[in-house]
Amino acid sequence: MDALTRLVAIEEIRQLKSRYFRTMDTHDLEGMAEVFCKDAVLDVRNVFRYVPLGGDPVGPTGPVIHGRDNIMDWLGQSLPVTSSAHHGHGHEITIVSETEAHGVIAMEDVVRRPDCKSPVLHGYGHYYERYAFEDGAWRIAESRLERLLIDLHTDEFN
Amino acid sequence: MDALTRLVAIEEIRQLKSRYFRTMDTHDLEGMAEVFCKDAVLDVRNVFRYVPLGGDPVGPTGPVIHGRDNIMDWLGQSLPVTSSAHHGHGHEITIVSETEAHGVIAMEDVVRRPDCKSPVLHGYGHYYERYAFEDGAWRIAESRLERLLIDLHTDEFN
Amino acid sequence: MDALTRLVAIEEIRQLKSRYFRTMDTHDLEGMAEVFCKDAVLDVRNVFRYVPLGGDPVGPTGPVIHGRDNIMDWLGQSLPVTSSAHHGHGHEITIVSETEAHGVIAMEDVVRRPDCKSPVLHGYGHYYERYAFEDGAWRIAESRLERLLIDLHTDEFN
Repeated sequence: MDALTRLVAIEEIRQLKSRYFRTMDTHDLEGMAEVFCKDAVLDVRNVFRYVPLGGDPVGPTGPVIHGRDNIMDWLGQSLPVTSSAHHGHGHEITIVSETEAHGVIAMEDVVRRPDCKSPVLHGYGHYYERYAFEDGAWRIAESRLERLLIDLHTDEFN
Repeated sequence: MDALTRLVAIEEIRQLKSRYFRTMDTHDLEGMAEVFCKDAVLDVRNVFRYVPLGGDPVGPTGPVIHGRDNIMDWLGQSLPVTSSAHHGHGHEITIVSETEAHGVIAMEDVVRRPDCKSPVLHGYGHYYERYAFEDGAWRIAESRLERLLIDLHTDEFN
Repeated sequence: MDALTRLVAIEEIRQLKSRYFRTMDTHDLEGMAEVFCKDAVLDVRNVFRYVPLGGDPVGPTGPVIHGRDNIMDWLGQSLPVTSSAHHGHGHEITIVSETEAHGVIAMEDVVRRPDCKSPVLHGYGHYYERYAFEDGAWRIAESRLERLLIDLHTDEFN
């Protein structure tokens, strides 16, 4: 691959991840489905957990979800009952070929009740991801979230 | 337009928006004037408002300001009496032609009194923007801020 | 330099700074050493200080550290006893030549005790940096941190 093709792919994947965050926070579930590959895997086992230095994970275990339809079912249950802001930072994207890429994205998320005020969670972490060029666009093939810090203001996930 | 011209324009607009945030937080009003087109429109009607899910907007209504000089007058009144950090994330920039572009930028802002401690507001949202290549550089032609979440610690804007 | 070479360098430096933040927060000291030039200078005199408008700096003075080995010694003392999230935003990177560049990066950092809960500091600011292409990669040659806001929850740095 030449340098230009590589840069174009990096920019497209950066904007792909931005669409993921924006469609999530604006509750655009139709737009959000477009960011995932048909057989995407979403590994959010650690979405509600943090790991004290030298200790074991603290917090409830989230699911590993296989397939875009199942991912959207899961997101469709939680998104409409929250007001949120999810941000991605420091995209380290590596293009492997014209159809394969992987990356690490730093993140912060603020999730509240629909009143925009009552806190649900506020966290920081990294997404470790694989991307594939499928059906004419780059899409998320696999996404695993690891936490650095999280303040969980509810026990409903236990 | 070829791919390289498009990538150069995206990078210039990304850095343009970063200058907007940096000049705001460092109180560099002269540098900030450079980021706007002469006839720029700044729509901050929702800068102090949030919208609970399924509800009406809560909070005072901000202005729609026409023209760089009026924009800088308005900013020149508020910036010198605050200490702030404004950050932009997830730039989704689309180049329409060699002189026209539009984009969505996620944002977070923390505004405090000049003592750097007393809170004024802390919010999250998106800028919906148009850009134009004018007088030798990309500049902001139109900017509208929509909020996801905001904590307003003062009633002076009512 | 042509436009493509310049864009490639900007992307590499953006990812370089992301590696700096990620290796810091994941305590990957070996990976972190790679981001610095051998003779790098780290100026963190203001890392714990904020400046009220029209006033003098408030807070303890940090060090100016010369050389990668000394920088890693200093970081190696503080990183293992914190849980943290450091994010970079709004990269304004200027390529001067094929081996020299400079930039300004907006930042936010959240530092806590190893329990991931007890706060140490939460701040905002800008990195003013120089980069050099050395030993086959872009690396940080000089980095100076200036604060906009900081909440310091300890007096151990005094």
